[in-house]
Amino acid sequence: MTDPQYAVDVFSRRCPSRETMQDITSRWGVLALAALHDGPHRFGELRRRVDGVSERMLAQTLQRLERDGLVTRTVLTQIPPAVEYTLTDLGRATAAPVVALIGVVEHRIDEVLAARADYDRRTDRAGG
Amino acid sequence: MTDPQYAVDVFSRRCPSRETMQDITSRWGVLALAALHDGPHRFGELRRRVDGVSERMLAQTLQRLERDGLVTRTVLTQIPPAVEYTLTDLGRATAAPVVALIGVVEHRIDEVLAARADYDRRTDRAGG
Repeated sequence: MTDPQYAVDVFSRRCPSRETMQDITSRWGVLALAALHDGPHRFGELRRRVDGVSERMLAQTLQRLERDGLVTRTVLTQIPPAVEYTLTDLGRATAAPVVALIGVVEHRIDEVLAARADYDRRTDRAGG
Repeated sequence: MTDPQYAVDVFSRRCPSRETMQDITSRWGVLALAALHDGPHRFGELRRRVDGVSERMLAQTLQRLERDGLVTRTVLTQIPPAVEYTLTDLGRATAAPVVALIGVVEHRIDEVLAARADYDRRTDRAGG
């Protein structure tokens, strides 16, 4: 599939791996993958879980993840109809390091906040 | 540091962990962290490594990572002067899952491209 003349390299602007990384690490892509890492979710459940996302942005995000082969969309034949999203095998492989990263950030957020306060003091950003 | 009334939760729009995730997973943040995971880099080296980034965007990206306590900026007293960037301990902890994610995406990019081709055929996006 990939052009054999190119090595796969996310640092190269033309490599398709870079665009895929952007789908995964987009503002809402990260959170949708992390939510689905816990198990399949319906659209409405995902929307409630990912606080602040609009219906339109969530739909676009899921569509990109589906196109990249990370997420499967299943229409449940019930009344009222519902749509369920599930990670594929590839989706689980990418969601795992995303969840690991979130874990580090959540666990060490106090260090981040301390660093920010220190940086703002040093650079006198607070004004004064 | 964090408000004890809130649990730290990246899914909550007000949690500072979400903003930090966005600094890390930004278009250029991901690549800067991955490059620095290999070792300290000077600004010019980083700019060459992260293909396509502008001087201004790289500087802004590094500044956000420095403010979050992920990157240390050192001015080398030499002629001509140079600036070197190094990951902090916290930066290494966040760069590790980022590098793992890049590894998955690069390794399995053919599956992504096959999924995209299949999706485009199914949804008749190619027009026709």
